Amino acid sequence: MEKIKSRSEIGIFALGGLGEVGKNMYCIDYLEQLFIIDAGILFPDEHLLGVDYVIQDFSYLIENQHRIIGLFITHGHEDHIGGIPFLLKKVKIPKIYASGVTVDLIENKLIEYPELLNSTQIVEFKSHFVFNFKGVDISFVRVNHSIPDSFAIVFKTELGSIVHTGDFKIDLTPVGPGAEYDKLANLGQEGVLCLLADSTNALREGFTSSESQIGKSIKELFSKIEDRIIVATFASNMFRVQQIIEACVECNRHIAIFGRSMEKTIEVGQNVGYIKAPKGTIIDPEEINNYKPNEMCLLCTGSQGEPLAALSRVANGSHRVIKLIPSDTIIFSSSPIPGNQEGVNRTINQLFKNGANVITHSPIADTHTTGHASQGELKLMLTLLKPKYFMPIHGEYRMQRVHADLAIETGVKPENTFIMENGDVLAINDHSARIAGHVQAGDVYIDGTGIGDISTNIIKERKALSEDGMFSLIITIDTKNKNIPLDPQVVSRGFIYMKDSEELTKYFVDETKKFVISEMNKMNLVSLPQIEKSLVTELSRIIYEKTDRKPIVIPIFMDINPEK
Amino acid sequence: MEKIKSRSEIGIFALGGLGEVGKNMYCIDYLEQLFIIDAGILFPDEHLLGVDYVIQDFSYLIENQHRIIGLFITHGHEDHIGGIPFLLKKVKIPKIYASGVTVDLIENKLIEYPELLNSTQIVEFKSHFVFNFKGVDISFVRVNHSIPDSFAIVFKTELGSIVHTGDFKIDLTPVGPGAEYDKLANLGQEGVLCLLADSTNALREGFTSSESQIGKSIKELFSKIEDRIIVATFASNMFRVQQIIEACVECNRHIAIFGRSMEKTIEVGQNVGYIKAPKGTIIDPEEINNYKPNEMCLLCTGSQGEPLAALSRVANGSHRVIKLIPSDTIIFSSSPIPGNQEGVNRTINQLFKNGANVITHSPIADTHTTGHASQGELKLMLTLLKPKYFMPIHGEYRMQRVHADLAIETGVKPENTFIMENGDVLAINDHSARIAGHVQAGDVYIDGTGIGDISTNIIKERKALSEDGMFSLIITIDTKNKNIPLDPQVVSRGFIYMKDSEELTKYFVDETKKFVISEMNKMNLVSLPQIEKSLVTELSRIIYEKTDRKPIVIPIFMDINPEK
Repeated sequence: MEKIKSRSEIGIFALGGLGEVGKNMYCIDYLEQLFIIDAGILFPDEHLLGVDYVIQDFSYLIENQHRIIGLFITHGHEDHIGGIPFLLKKVKIPKIYASGVTVDLIENKLIEYPELLNSTQIVEFKSHFVFNFKGVDISFVRVNHSIPDSFAIVFKTELGSIVHTGDFKIDLTPVGPGAEYDKLANLGQEGVLCLLADSTNALREGFTSSESQIGKSIKELFSKIEDRIIVATFASNMFRVQQIIEACVECNRHIAIFGRSMEKTIEVGQNVGYIKAPKGTIIDPEEINNYKPNEMCLLCTGSQGEPLAALSRVANGSHRVIKLIPSDTIIFSSSPIPGNQEGVNRTINQLFKNGANVITHSPIADTHTTGHASQGELKLMLTLLKPKYFMPIHGEYRMQRVHADLAIETGVKPENTFIMENGDVLAINDHSARIAGHVQAGDVYIDGTGIGDISTNIIKERKALSEDGMFSLIITIDTKNKNIPLDPQVVSRGFIYMKDSEELTKYFVDETKKFVISEMNKMNLVSLPQIEKSLVTELSRIIYEKTDRKPIVIPIFMDINPEK
Repeated sequence: MEKIKSRSEIGIFALGGLGEVGKNMYCIDYLEQLFIIDAGILFPDEHLLGVDYVIQDFSYLIENQHRIIGLFITHGHEDHIGGIPFLLKKVKIPKIYASGVTVDLIENKLIEYPELLNSTQIVEFKSHFVFNFKGVDISFVRVNHSIPDSFAIVFKTELGSIVHTGDFKIDLTPVGPGAEYDKLANLGQEGVLCLLADSTNALREGFTSSESQIGKSIKELFSKIEDRIIVATFASNMFRVQQIIEACVECNRHIAIFGRSMEKTIEVGQNVGYIKAPKGTIIDPEEINNYKPNEMCLLCTGSQGEPLAALSRVANGSHRVIKLIPSDTIIFSSSPIPGNQEGVNRTINQLFKNGANVITHSPIADTHTTGHASQGELKLMLTLLKPKYFMPIHGEYRMQRVHADLAIETGVKPENTFIMENGDVLAINDHSARIAGHVQAGDVYIDGTGIGDISTNIIKERKALSEDGMFSLIITIDTKNKNIPLDPQVVSRGFIYMKDSEELTKYFVDETKKFVISEMNKMNLVSLPQIEKSLVTELSRIIYEKTDRKPIVIPIFMDINPEK
């Protein structure tokens, strides 16, 4: 990284969240102090075979550990807090600043790692708190999003304010507390130096509909349904869950909760007060059959078609408690996240096949809204804050790009918008801003207990194995006499069905023997590594010729009579 | 299959296409004659690792080979003709009936298999042809779809007419010839016994927009673009290609063609007359740099983000001829097919990063329309044909179900709608219809040159390999003395990074030795297969405990000193 020119220059960079939706982590570097915003994970797409999560490369943080002041959390979604245990394992973080339900969600996450809880301290902030550090005051602005207690974070310095919006939408009739627009307007009046803003829905025109609108549609839908109702939604959206409970109360239905994350939401939500239900409304899951279908609503996880979630089990008939009745109506109060469409379709088809009725979000059944601002709201945020410099975050490149164009439309100078990649460092001083260098950033794959020992090579091997399997030959060899005394043993997985392919396998074995013996005879001193290499090439060629497939070929030599 | 009750009962079933979009194949069985409609493939989703295509199980056709009259093709898309070579390899099909460009596309496909061309005869039909068979007259109705020469097929019997719509939309301002609505109306007046109709877009309300409307939008877009234009679209949609050529002519642009399937479309389309361009409009790809950017349009494959297609290569900078210029505008005249969304997004992000402008289909840039009827059109087809019995085809269960509901809305009796699965046989006689049994149907996986030797087991092995790789130990063993004279050799792929895991590997090897020796000592006569089995269980447990991963564990014993 290029040396920061003046002691009062501000460095801003991301270790995750730029050019992608997920693994958010942004850093602000000022007067030798390092402030981290969020530590999320990314759920990999199917190309990363066997990888459970992707997290950030922490190298820069490890090197600069002594300068870290704390981790500031905008809200409690997994792409913002899911990486905290991995981060704490590798980097000393003195304090984690979070608010409301976010604190509960982080504590819940760290229960499994008591040793990590000892190495840090969770500081709960309220929206009016200000934390003072050297040359920086950190304050918060409540925003609206699809989980309670979401905040923008403000870093006030003598150069001006840096505002990070967190994830947000403009919801003028929210469920729960409203956003603090007065604070945003004040910030804009004082002058915002640099804005980092959520680009997730930058490609969507117009305005996002309000969370309370969805509550109304759900109530309307409920009032028309005469039998049992099953609703699936995102467990983290406590506002949605509360509105579903209210719809039940209005229609004289009891509600039962299925799925671990949904149970946790109810528990945390009731503690914090975002979820309220009259006594007797929420009943024990085991009691659902004590009520008539028109007295019941079942609230489930599985809105994304996740194979093991409650709704998927209901659909395929394997749920322990819920048995589908043909008169059931299933409401998806959700939209499929990109990549989950096929799983969701599979669940819907199964539900339909069982005779149930399925209602998904559509223009005529408004059962879901997003938590991220569309173009109209993004322009409103830009107009309120009037930033000098603008950095679109939290989105793929095309979203960042369109968001930058929106900023320019609202008056930001084109040369003052910075579409950056993870690791790029924006350096701002009192008269200019520029990309001043690059810190190490990248993807770290988590599979099982290991962090980061899944390299690109391992993924490549898995990819090759997944496409055509493996074909291994254990070759007992006598290098002294240059012959192969026994037939090589074949081990094959995921390649061809061995029982049907005896002739083919024999052919591969015979060709191998011929090739190896001829190679040995070409050599004065037999080099097994050399033969192994050329055998892999030759055998791969022969196999491809016969089968059109490219398994990983693994010859293993057992030399029983080496030329000493 | 239950015995057909009367000689004049009609049997209708599908070997593919019900409960799925793809591998279409429908059969009509009447007076001991078997008529096949279409022979398509299905492109598998990512769960079928390494599988190139899925085709039908041909068992029933092989058994009833002698009764097959012919294969009737509705149109030339891969999900309707892609399976022809596989079918011909296994089943004797005396004649293939097809029309116009479909004939060219089938011939092109069979060029690689000259032996197959000898075993069958391609009969080209025109829309007014009638083929007479015992008790059945087969005729055709031209319909509109996203490829020229698409037809509905009519089987007229003394019991009434069976109508198969093929893939269709109602396009009142089509490009190319219009659908023969008069024929449809006449069929309805005479009375249709059973309708089999395309359900692909049964979930979409309203009406599909016209192909010619898209041509207008594209011309409008072109007129506003001042630099080079790159368009990607489905190669098979000759109407779209023709409209893009016309837009070029109007805007004084030359056009160059990239991608093999696009070249083939131009060639076939020009032969048949669906594609026409004034001389000099289409130029050689190598000459594109002889013209100014505002004189050029490049027409590419790759609208689905396929990694090897022209547009993807352009996006990642590896195209031999086309080098992206920041002033380029790329137009996607397409929509992502479910499952391709992520690949398309990747391409778009890369194009944007290279500075180019990208326009995708949206409410403000109407660059694409589907070839399948929405609900309004489906109801129109039902209203024109007034079928007694109705069987929704070509769709997933939820699409079939909604389509059946539409049929009921237009007057079909609920008990006369049949939502069937592949293999279910609908038997219709002169007074009733019922599901009369089931013929063998299922998925056959094609990977490389083999047909059907990819079993579910192979896929399961590939799945396991793809998630956690493999861990193999070659154990040189002395069963006579019950010991292991050498350290087992380890071969691992896709599991852990071996260089970083020496200690872990050593632990696994030591545990293996201990376990195997202790097992041998428990036995009077050493049974290696028995030890192998228990070792797999034990070693898998140890590995999971240490790594949270479940590789395929493969021990291989080399007994150097057997107990005689």
